[in-house]
Amino acid sequence: MNMHQRIERLREVMEARGLDAAVIFNFENQFYFSGLKAITYSRPIILIVERTRQSLIIPRLEENHAKEKTDVDALYVYHEVAGAGDAGTDYRELFDEALSKLGPDSTVGIEYGSLPTDYTLRIQDQGFGIEDIGRDIVELRAIKTDEEIGMIRKSGELVSGALKETLENSSAGKSELEIDYYGNQFLFEEISQKYTNSTLDYFVMSPSGVRRTNMPHVFSNTRKLEEGDVIIHSRQVGLNGYRAECERTFFVGEPADRQREVFDVMLRAHIAALDFIKVGVTAAEVNEAALSVIREAGLEEYVSHRTGHGIGIGQHEEPSLRFDNNLVLAPGMVFCVEPGIYVPGVGGFRHSDTVVLREDGTEIITEYPRDLESLIFK
Amino acid sequence: MNMHQRIERLREVMEARGLDAAVIFNFENQFYFSGLKAITYSRPIILIVERTRQSLIIPRLEENHAKEKTDVDALYVYHEVAGAGDAGTDYRELFDEALSKLGPDSTVGIEYGSLPTDYTLRIQDQGFGIEDIGRDIVELRAIKTDEEIGMIRKSGELVSGALKETLENSSAGKSELEIDYYGNQFLFEEISQKYTNSTLDYFVMSPSGVRRTNMPHVFSNTRKLEEGDVIIHSRQVGLNGYRAECERTFFVGEPADRQREVFDVMLRAHIAALDFIKVGVTAAEVNEAALSVIREAGLEEYVSHRTGHGIGIGQHEEPSLRFDNNLVLAPGMVFCVEPGIYVPGVGGFRHSDTVVLREDGTEIITEYPRDLESLIFK
Repeated sequence: MNMHQRIERLREVMEARGLDAAVIFNFENQFYFSGLKAITYSRPIILIVERTRQSLIIPRLEENHAKEKTDVDALYVYHEVAGAGDAGTDYRELFDEALSKLGPDSTVGIEYGSLPTDYTLRIQDQGFGIEDIGRDIVELRAIKTDEEIGMIRKSGELVSGALKETLENSSAGKSELEIDYYGNQFLFEEISQKYTNSTLDYFVMSPSGVRRTNMPHVFSNTRKLEEGDVIIHSRQVGLNGYRAECERTFFVGEPADRQREVFDVMLRAHIAALDFIKVGVTAAEVNEAALSVIREAGLEEYVSHRTGHGIGIGQHEEPSLRFDNNLVLAPGMVFCVEPGIYVPGVGGFRHSDTVVLREDGTEIITEYPRDLESLIFK
Repeated sequence: MNMHQRIERLREVMEARGLDAAVIFNFENQFYFSGLKAITYSRPIILIVERTRQSLIIPRLEENHAKEKTDVDALYVYHEVAGAGDAGTDYRELFDEALSKLGPDSTVGIEYGSLPTDYTLRIQDQGFGIEDIGRDIVELRAIKTDEEIGMIRKSGELVSGALKETLENSSAGKSELEIDYYGNQFLFEEISQKYTNSTLDYFVMSPSGVRRTNMPHVFSNTRKLEEGDVIIHSRQVGLNGYRAECERTFFVGEPADRQREVFDVMLRAHIAALDFIKVGVTAAEVNEAALSVIREAGLEEYVSHRTGHGIGIGQHEEPSLRFDNNLVLAPGMVFCVEPGIYVPGVGGFRHSDTVVLREDGTEIITEYPRDLESLIFK
């Protein structure tokens, strides 16, 4: 991935806004700008980008990893064993030291939404000003390059394949965790065979039954599927750090009439949004394209979330397909379309597909039938 | 879990420190104090604890979930669909509103290490003082109740069983991801059968070969095990939110002589630390118990991380078994002991076990043979 170009774009933002340095703490942003992705962040990692220099504050445990993945100019390594000469053992001291190299009256760009208070107070303690660059970085990340789209497309193939395995192996008597597992197995086998030296992140949940499908976000548990159950099967796959999402609402056994009706409204809303999307419309207009279908069916009160969200390194990026977002959709944006309807006593209903927006139209990169008859399993 | 007692302890801290409110943002701390655990946090959740009142700022998407799990006094729900009456749609405005109920000149306890800058500036904008309560919460969480220990013990059984499955199904030609998968399958089957209505978090990695075992934290990938490989298999399992960790260094095929030597030093260091642990010693002394064995063998330069860390809701809690931590070990602490040695050209070597400290001694809650002959698989 072309980190150099990304850093140059960040420096253009810094130049335009009169910033002398940017402190990048959010781990998705760190991955975006440096290629480095740690397993856990209980030992802090901090990237500092100046106009002509990049520094990384990093635990000794990640030093080799950082050397392999990044080409920063200065590594400030903190140790957690004594006797390592005059090496630092406190990342806060190294952060102060790195900051002290900035000129007097510097202004530092920080992510207001991510940078913990402790760091901000340290920046202010040295007399520097702060400005929020969170939004600038969100906007940089929202437009994907062809290389990034290629990576997301592979994740789209994998997530669709995993969803298929789970759905087609579902039946009454199996637990939510058990059905998830069929798709997981597919993922492991696929990437072992086709993608050498790759990393895999995945997320899966399958709330089942009327009560649990009404909670849009819950972890799969040991509840066993029952005859006639509605299930929302939701998956994300991130191959080498770039994600795609696919979700289907499905049934084991026959749905009730009222469930068929709500499913139909959800499906029409989903397709209406997919059909509406093109370069130049706003995120809010896409949201409305789906919502108006639901409103006409008298179900608007059962809508609890936006119609969709961007995806990439993060699970939720711009464009947020939300009623109050006037962001204009542009080529290179990638997002999930997932209007949901949650009716107490009836069930939750939501499909999600991942879409790439191109100059000449949309490309849906996740794939599985959406119609009800294809989504009833015995 | 007894949330009431936890909140009362927090209020004792607030009383002692003269704080009028505490803003709890860190999601592990939120789970600790409220029982609420969201799937993702891209929609912020904020818990505000006052002396006599608790408030939760929460997305509509999590409202039912929060009502089921918590008993806060006030829910500030933000919506992401228009037309929901006069309901808020911006969590920042709801945060400002909740803060505005505090008396003038209030002081607010915040987690300096977790609370993003944006929230802190909003607290300061209303004229309130801030103080760091991160450390107080770390100390509350470090002493586990019998109920918490019981939950961690179950995770210990699961993680040991999963490790066994992976090790005993490993052989040259299988990929890191493939061997991980055997243990994962065990986990899913076990909790489906034994733990109804439970949640499962798990983490697994199996860096293999000389180069990758020298990077203590890397995601498993598609590299296939080769005859004679050293592998560090590392697992955490969190059943219903409470974690245990088990790790073993193992071989497919015969280790080289130098690998046998380093393995032996690591094993002696591991056992020395386990034998040393008791109520009243310091975290630094446990670290030294392991490190002195490694030092005497002339391998200290190959140590890059502390001897261990506390575990519970978090992957890494107090006590940090680190050279400069003079924390005195006390009954109810739970931690992982995992001295590691990483020798370029030879390999990385680390076992980890999870230990509960009781008044009358230690209880090791993870289990698998540690000696080299038991850890060679064909």
